[in-house]
Amino acid sequence: MNFSKRILNMNESPIRKLTPYAEAAKSQNKKVYHLNIGQPDIETPHLFMNKIKSLEDKIIKYTSSTGNDELIDNFIEFYKDYGLDYKRDEILITNGASEGLLFTLMALGDVGDEIIIPEPFYTNYKGICSSIGINVVPITTKIEDAFHLPSKEDFINKITDKTKAILLSNPSNPTGVVYTKEEIETIATIAKEHNLYVISDEVYRDFIYDDKEFNSFGEINPIADRVILIDSLSKRFSACGARIGSIVTKNKLLIKEILKLCQLRLCCPMLEQIGAAELLKTPKDYFISSLDTYKKRRDVLYNELKKIPNITITKPEGAFYIVIKLPVKDAEDFCIWLLRDFSFNNETVMLSPAKNFYCSDLGHNEVRIAYVIDENELIKASQILKIGLEKYTLEKGC
Amino acid sequence: MNFSKRILNMNESPIRKLTPYAEAAKSQNKKVYHLNIGQPDIETPHLFMNKIKSLEDKIIKYTSSTGNDELIDNFIEFYKDYGLDYKRDEILITNGASEGLLFTLMALGDVGDEIIIPEPFYTNYKGICSSIGINVVPITTKIEDAFHLPSKEDFINKITDKTKAILLSNPSNPTGVVYTKEEIETIATIAKEHNLYVISDEVYRDFIYDDKEFNSFGEINPIADRVILIDSLSKRFSACGARIGSIVTKNKLLIKEILKLCQLRLCCPMLEQIGAAELLKTPKDYFISSLDTYKKRRDVLYNELKKIPNITITKPEGAFYIVIKLPVKDAEDFCIWLLRDFSFNNETVMLSPAKNFYCSDLGHNEVRIAYVIDENELIKASQILKIGLEKYTLEKGC
Repeated sequence: MNFSKRILNMNESPIRKLTPYAEAAKSQNKKVYHLNIGQPDIETPHLFMNKIKSLEDKIIKYTSSTGNDELIDNFIEFYKDYGLDYKRDEILITNGASEGLLFTLMALGDVGDEIIIPEPFYTNYKGICSSIGINVVPITTKIEDAFHLPSKEDFINKITDKTKAILLSNPSNPTGVVYTKEEIETIATIAKEHNLYVISDEVYRDFIYDDKEFNSFGEINPIADRVILIDSLSKRFSACGARIGSIVTKNKLLIKEILKLCQLRLCCPMLEQIGAAELLKTPKDYFISSLDTYKKRRDVLYNELKKIPNITITKPEGAFYIVIKLPVKDAEDFCIWLLRDFSFNNETVMLSPAKNFYCSDLGHNEVRIAYVIDENELIKASQILKIGLEKYTLEKGC
Repeated sequence: MNFSKRILNMNESPIRKLTPYAEAAKSQNKKVYHLNIGQPDIETPHLFMNKIKSLEDKIIKYTSSTGNDELIDNFIEFYKDYGLDYKRDEILITNGASEGLLFTLMALGDVGDEIIIPEPFYTNYKGICSSIGINVVPITTKIEDAFHLPSKEDFINKITDKTKAILLSNPSNPTGVVYTKEEIETIATIAKEHNLYVISDEVYRDFIYDDKEFNSFGEINPIADRVILIDSLSKRFSACGARIGSIVTKNKLLIKEILKLCQLRLCCPMLEQIGAAELLKTPKDYFISSLDTYKKRRDVLYNELKKIPNITITKPEGAFYIVIKLPVKDAEDFCIWLLRDFSFNNETVMLSPAKNFYCSDLGHNEVRIAYVIDENELIKASQILKIGLEKYTLEKGC
């Protein structure tokens, strides 16, 4: 009655580990500010539900394994606004970015192959790789460098004959770093010189602050056949529950191979694809408004966090997360303590311990904060965090 | 610029192979009767769209990785009507039965492990296993035995120290066999004696004809912790495009392990889960009516096919497929010929070559027919098949 080694080797979701503590806190009528999750509170454009509500289909049918044609066509138009030119046979619709990444990795790597990923990284990268026997080779980025990439040499030192690809999210979850043109070009050069693919998770590409330049790997023509963009409508349109993502690449042979995996699950859901096709027509002022909201939240949060003594912090350039270093030994213990042993005016905060975003034994004194709640709530939550941290460090003597 | 061995070893969808011929036929204005696909033409219960149209949610949010609570609760109630008693922590919602099967196999088997499957089987079983490095060990069932299972000895001869489970669909796609109580009990005994799991794909369980008794593996209490039911709403409610399935097992530890995989893809789509929760409340007369429709179709098709000389045929007991043996050497060549080189009054039929439903080198002279179209169309399609077969055998001299 054994289970597979592959499943036993996988960790339980680190997010889930804290959930029972949050539930216990709430059952004691504590208010919990959720700084731990990436579920935006912005409204999904009404186009989505309006279109679905207008449908008169009598049968909820299978769609094409590649994805709904209209949805793909609208993706093509949408990318044109970014200066990216893709054709129908260069895009596959997936069940969120998660499935897109899983299928891409399955098509590129065998058991024992390696993928280089700058850490800290989105924690599910590790689980997805582990589930299919691919080894993550982390390359550490540091808060002191504002989480920008280490040197070309450092990357090259990580490459072995098992290395298949470099995977990164840009802007980054969890750090909020937006890679510079030089960084993108260095990665591209490494990919070309060492025969690697680049998997670029750009699901946060619409969240770039301070008019910072965003450079997509999709623009780097000399390595176009080595680049796979992983995309999703979840964050862009605040439609996480629609589970609509895409795999985008100029490598048509790769698309043909990944299609085999798409066919095994027949298709993505019909309704969500129809709604998603509408989402891609959302007027640009939606982004302007939501970007403005997130920028204000980032600024408010950053300013509040700056008031907390002895923490290390760097201003995020994109996405809606920040990683901060705390004056504690074990940030997970602190996160549990906040939920279980602490409250201020019967309120507390929930954070994500950042060690789960590393593959190396690092990040023990770091946490990730998501700023997807209201500005006033962010201020209150930061103040509670400040008070909690003072009390914790006093109690624990660290 | 290589791809993984795992993806290169996978076959392109055998269904897809004939699609260009069907498209070419249609572009010549030939009418093509689709006897090749399992997309039912019955209306999805209106409850599904009505509920979704009534929603007033402003944000399309992530749901729980285990699945929407109400949907799980309604599954529990639904199974009670079948005499099956499951709890919340014994059910996971999946993106169709396909994902349910993939996750179950990933949790049970490592690369090189073996799964015994009676053949002919649903062709994607092979692809799903192949994608994760699990080897299919087929055990052949024959049209002459009405596709019932071979002896206990035959099964035991297939078991090695790599065997993890026996997987079967009941009623079977593609054969329409419904396994007897004795067959189910024999499999259960083998599972117990040889420490195996039983993965029972029961997505067609509501399509049982002639008041034949259906026995679910979920009823076999002595091996309850070894049984995993794979279920789906696709066929039952004619809602294939909703992609809502489930993994159901009394083995709570297995659920806990599979949940790790569910968490990696965050959740199933929100809307489809809400609609699916309603589907499970569909009044029983929907099944009575749709079962009646399919039974009539089966009878009409069976009677028409009986009129074709030199074919071997057995009456399906369930599901909505039939496998028939043709007096040809290469049924795939015949299927292509029907689309490319033949028409009768400018009409032709599309069939599925059955060799793709085997893992052994068998089924070359067999095809699968799905009876998911109208009775009159089935009669016409059968008559066209008869004429086509006469002409083909005359031309090819077989």
